Amino acid sequence: MASATRLFVEQDLNAGAVVGASADQAHYLRSVLRMKGGEPVLLFNGRDGEWSARIDGLGKGWASLKVLEKRRDQTASPDLWLLFAPIKRARHDFLIQKATELGCARISPVLTRRTQVERVKDERLRANAIEAAEQCERLEAPQVDAPRKLQDWLDAWPADRRLLVAAESGDAPPLAEALAAEPDPDRPRWALLIGPEGGFAQDELESLRQLAFVTPVGLGPRVLRAETAALAAIAVWQSAAGDWGSRPPGRNGGSGAE
Amino acid sequence: MASATRLFVEQDLNAGAVVGASADQAHYLRSVLRMKGGEPVLLFNGRDGEWSARIDGLGKGWASLKVLEKRRDQTASPDLWLLFAPIKRARHDFLIQKATELGCARISPVLTRRTQVERVKDERLRANAIEAAEQCERLEAPQVDAPRKLQDWLDAWPADRRLLVAAESGDAPPLAEALAAEPDPDRPRWALLIGPEGGFAQDELESLRQLAFVTPVGLGPRVLRAETAALAAIAVWQSAAGDWGSRPPGRNGGSGAE
Repeated sequence: MASATRLFVEQDLNAGAVVGASADQAHYLRSVLRMKGGEPVLLFNGRDGEWSARIDGLGKGWASLKVLEKRRDQTASPDLWLLFAPIKRARHDFLIQKATELGCARISPVLTRRTQVERVKDERLRANAIEAAEQCERLEAPQVDAPRKLQDWLDAWPADRRLLVAAESGDAPPLAEALAAEPDPDRPRWALLIGPEGGFAQDELESLRQLAFVTPVGLGPRVLRAETAALAAIAVWQSAAGDWGSRPPGRNGGSGAE
Repeated sequence: MASATRLFVEQDLNAGAVVGASADQAHYLRSVLRMKGGEPVLLFNGRDGEWSARIDGLGKGWASLKVLEKRRDQTASPDLWLLFAPIKRARHDFLIQKATELGCARISPVLTRRTQVERVKDERLRANAIEAAEQCERLEAPQVDAPRKLQDWLDAWPADRRLLVAAESGDAPPLAEALAAEPDPDRPRWALLIGPEGGFAQDELESLRQLAFVTPVGLGPRVLRAETAALAAIAVWQSAAGDWGSRPPGRNGGSGAE
């Protein structure tokens, strides 16, 4: 629903700088939006906030953008990681897009025993995440990792981050209850793990339960597809432990995120 | 992730009854799943619970199913209505599917001032909802209404149902806060209204705010697409005021839904 065209760039942003758009972005400006030189865009790079800019030059596969002035200071999305077992492509694209909209800081495909899709193009995931970030007024794109085995993740797990594992079976407490039981919802840091279609292998889930940093959580009585479970869990987390207390930027003077 | 094949039928279900599948269901059984006569399925109709059955006869565009025994008593999804301004087709299908998975009792397209998609095939919406219900172990399909003007809805609004309006602008409290402020979250009944891409017209939102049964709510600082806003709001509602306290059926003896 963003009104102005927002582009994510890698380069530093400061008044007077001239930065280049990617070939895809240039195509989007030129052939999709039919924009011309001189027209305004907004730029962000995840470090320097949001800047107004104008199209300096525009051609087939390239665009140069003149940075004008800062519009918003840099903010960060809540420090939530999403670990998920890859699913089929269309739903996968959708999951990345929505997880970005809903404000995940990091998105990581993990390979579990029953993961059905082993091959994941992480370049494609990154492009999806950046496009979604451009559209939802985030000031950074989520970090998108290359696929990694679940066990490798667990072996190197950071001690100060709690891993909420969506467990269909067993007597796991509802997610909101698990979050409320955490004395200070801002500490520790959080991550969500969503299993593959068909769930975790039983021993996989059992060994997860043994880990001190793991909290199995329930997502209600209905059987959710993997991407639905991920989005529902992110939304509930953002509402309970994230930044839903603040408002969209520039709508009531609120700052983009907390 | 449901293991057994579940079919929604219109007919009454009782031991020994023979019921017919729709042409689409028959095609699915025969050509997609390559099932044969005698193989088991599960049936539900939204009234009589879930029943085991077996395929009695199966041909091109038809299937007859012999009802065997009751597996689960009838349950209802939480009494949540979703009113939303129609969006483009692919995202629309997706929204219906996810809203069904997440347990909306009623799904209603509403036409607002800025609604971009006026033509909605409600037969298609219903088919989507039924298919999603078959897959997520619900025992009923949500009621899906024909598109209706927002004003017509408001003029005939039931006094005992609170309408939570997702408002991007202004100082609306976060959804969870609004739900917590309700003395008894089970009363009154609830509905969610998600506006069109680009939001409500300003005077539309203003007149909504004037209505006693309306509570404007915020969904966080990021700008969400219409379908993302709907799913996030449904998930947070289910978690806070719905049935997320219970577990999926048949996984720990839990009852499906409350």
